[in-house]
Amino acid sequence: MEEALKFAQQNQEKNLQELLAFLAIPSVSTKPEHKPDVKEAAEWLALEMERGGLENIRIIDNGGHPLVYADWMHAGADEPTVLIYGHYDVQPAEPFDLWLSPPFDPQIRDDYIYARGASDDKGQLYIHVKVVEAYLKTVGKLPVNVKFIVEGEEEVGGMSLETFIPENKELLAADVVLISDTAMLSPDHPAIVCGLRGNVYAFVDVTGPEHDLHSGSYGGGINNPLNAMAHIIAGLKDKEGHILIPGFYDRVRPLSDDERQIVNSVPFDEESWLKESGAPQSWGEPEYSLIERLGVRPTLDVNGLIGGYTETGRKTVLPAHVHAKISMRLVPDQDPEEIGRLFSDYIKQIAPPSVRVKVSIVGTSAPVVSEMDSPAISAVTEACVQTFDRQPVFLREGGSIPVVAQFQDTLNLETVMLGFGLPDDHIHSPNERFYLPNYYHGILTGIRFFEAYARHHAG
Amino acid sequence: MEEALKFAQQNQEKNLQELLAFLAIPSVSTKPEHKPDVKEAAEWLALEMERGGLENIRIIDNGGHPLVYADWMHAGADEPTVLIYGHYDVQPAEPFDLWLSPPFDPQIRDDYIYARGASDDKGQLYIHVKVVEAYLKTVGKLPVNVKFIVEGEEEVGGMSLETFIPENKELLAADVVLISDTAMLSPDHPAIVCGLRGNVYAFVDVTGPEHDLHSGSYGGGINNPLNAMAHIIAGLKDKEGHILIPGFYDRVRPLSDDERQIVNSVPFDEESWLKESGAPQSWGEPEYSLIERLGVRPTLDVNGLIGGYTETGRKTVLPAHVHAKISMRLVPDQDPEEIGRLFSDYIKQIAPPSVRVKVSIVGTSAPVVSEMDSPAISAVTEACVQTFDRQPVFLREGGSIPVVAQFQDTLNLETVMLGFGLPDDHIHSPNERFYLPNYYHGILTGIRFFEAYARHHAG
Repeated sequence: MEEALKFAQQNQEKNLQELLAFLAIPSVSTKPEHKPDVKEAAEWLALEMERGGLENIRIIDNGGHPLVYADWMHAGADEPTVLIYGHYDVQPAEPFDLWLSPPFDPQIRDDYIYARGASDDKGQLYIHVKVVEAYLKTVGKLPVNVKFIVEGEEEVGGMSLETFIPENKELLAADVVLISDTAMLSPDHPAIVCGLRGNVYAFVDVTGPEHDLHSGSYGGGINNPLNAMAHIIAGLKDKEGHILIPGFYDRVRPLSDDERQIVNSVPFDEESWLKESGAPQSWGEPEYSLIERLGVRPTLDVNGLIGGYTETGRKTVLPAHVHAKISMRLVPDQDPEEIGRLFSDYIKQIAPPSVRVKVSIVGTSAPVVSEMDSPAISAVTEACVQTFDRQPVFLREGGSIPVVAQFQDTLNLETVMLGFGLPDDHIHSPNERFYLPNYYHGILTGIRFFEAYARHHAG
Repeated sequence: MEEALKFAQQNQEKNLQELLAFLAIPSVSTKPEHKPDVKEAAEWLALEMERGGLENIRIIDNGGHPLVYADWMHAGADEPTVLIYGHYDVQPAEPFDLWLSPPFDPQIRDDYIYARGASDDKGQLYIHVKVVEAYLKTVGKLPVNVKFIVEGEEEVGGMSLETFIPENKELLAADVVLISDTAMLSPDHPAIVCGLRGNVYAFVDVTGPEHDLHSGSYGGGINNPLNAMAHIIAGLKDKEGHILIPGFYDRVRPLSDDERQIVNSVPFDEESWLKESGAPQSWGEPEYSLIERLGVRPTLDVNGLIGGYTETGRKTVLPAHVHAKISMRLVPDQDPEEIGRLFSDYIKQIAPPSVRVKVSIVGTSAPVVSEMDSPAISAVTEACVQTFDRQPVFLREGGSIPVVAQFQDTLNLETVMLGFGLPDDHIHSPNERFYLPNYYHGILTGIRFFEAYARHHAG
């Protein structure tokens, strides 16, 4: 391993130049005019994987932008297999005029690489290609077996990977998934995301009269679907943020004192967080801290609502129909199917008979939480301490990464989310950047993780 | 008067042909391409008024489609003056393919005239032109002084008349306003509208974060403006239809037992009314009958609401901003300015500090109620009994006709709403029609009203 570490340190400039070339390809997955660029990025990556010593390189067309697969499986049958996931596509760069340097002409200023995709996720993904190379170009072998599955549709929620996984369980079989697509707390404070909230997404349609009525002629005699919808939504979550669906909290796994302490020990600047959001106050269940509400508590939000006359000006209409999009974030051990059922049943129960209500569950993903005492978590902790001389913090994040739930549900795989971004990397915004020392530290941490994981897995 | 009645009966065919010519002009006020047709209808009407013996004919351009004024003021200074209001513009006829005969090629089938505007309002308005003619072509004089003010922007809510009235108080000075733009209960059961609800229209804007946030990352920590709006709306009116704004009902004039009996004695087929609306149930304040809730009780409706992601599919957004349009129908003696103030104050009181709320009152009109013992009501009752051999019912309608409130507020004039339409005339819909016997009966009733009004006014 020492040779691999030394190789990585000696090749910093070469590794940087390669990343800059990767970042120069405008692989914007949502724009049809960039389709050739997305393909070029996949091919560029496949070529560099091959140069780094990976084998069985495949560029897979599964309907949308290509998937890239590669592996190196010669560590031995007793050694564990690490499946590395990442994405080579990027968000659109608009508005271009807010960029201080062009988004696809990567430039380095004050130790940051400025480019679209620098942090999300090309820079973080490419770390692991360089980890493999460092071993294979020195020791000639890796301490673990490695597979890569990289997609080009993460930023557009494409289906290529989602349909590929269940049809290729054997190809993707592994002992753990490793993803670098999250952030550290600060340049010297590593962070491991150990939980993600799940999600249930529902459409609720309330219909009253068959066609829009005049509110002067019918108001007071026909229940207005917009007023009825307001009562339904107000009945789902109280003004303090408690969800009122019976049974909703039943399976929420209680936090141990230890877990609660870990969650709350994460350095968090509430004031600047609130300022960035622009909201007048933070808000939510008063029995829980803000950081608990954002990561380890389930919640419910109306994501969209439309009904009646919504153009400029006024019209006295009693609308026939109202549509709401409502989603819930779930935490372990809530079951998305069960929550969807409880949600539907409760709405049907509270909806008045003077309107018709239809509830459709249109998407679910399970909450994810890592077992804190697994060999992978022990190994990644050790690797972080060796590189940063500091214990990583364990974060449970509020968002959902559906592919992580799919790795868990379909492949029965634990995922380790070891991120090297920073909270102010401006991902999805102008002037996205990646902290250059994190790139180099990431490669060292990856090298150390493979070695430690082989050891912990054996022991 | 007998001569006038006889003249009207002898000239039915001529009066019908004139109305058919009026209906053939497509005076669709909302469509720019029909602007010349609207003008033509005004000119046609002015000419027929002149032919009928009316004087001082004026076609007035007050910014939008023209107003038509005419009068006959020779009844004598002691006789009262009746101001007749109507509108010669019509709703668009789309969808054309649902018409059994073309909307502007009037045809008669089974005693109905089928044409756009037949009932609303050309047919009803033209009745009064023919009433005047019947007197002037026979007796040579009218028992009362008469003024007409007819507009071409009723269906588009234009401002020409609204700005004309306060600037022409002397021109429009009268003792009573007569409007035929409402419906009878059935062909043999006349109806007089003696009350209209007023209106307060408000925009409510709830803003949380400064820009849309990801509901996975912020849900549970930032109050969602859509959820907050639902709580605000649910706080305005309870599930049974009671308005919760403090002081809202304070000035609602209690119905006397007599008034309540009159209101409830109106024949009303709740089942077919409900079927026509398409709603699963009627609904509203359980202490009041449906017909009371529709006419004599104030109410509150959300007319439109939009926020968050409303396109097809799903997006996990915690929206920055939500817009609602909310209107209230008022009854005597509620004051629209006061209600607007109570509404704004209450919303600011119940809105949580975790969001920002802006309330704008964008329109008000006062409720209207006729004095039941006025000379005009006595006269119109007598005229109805003479023509239909039946007492008219007195209705308080749920809708608002802003010009009636303006006549009341600006000119201090009582309005008599004597309608000759029928509930199933399909106004604003394909196959609008006017029951031909009602046209002829309307002219006879109008003749009798002038005579009776002169008598009751003197006595």
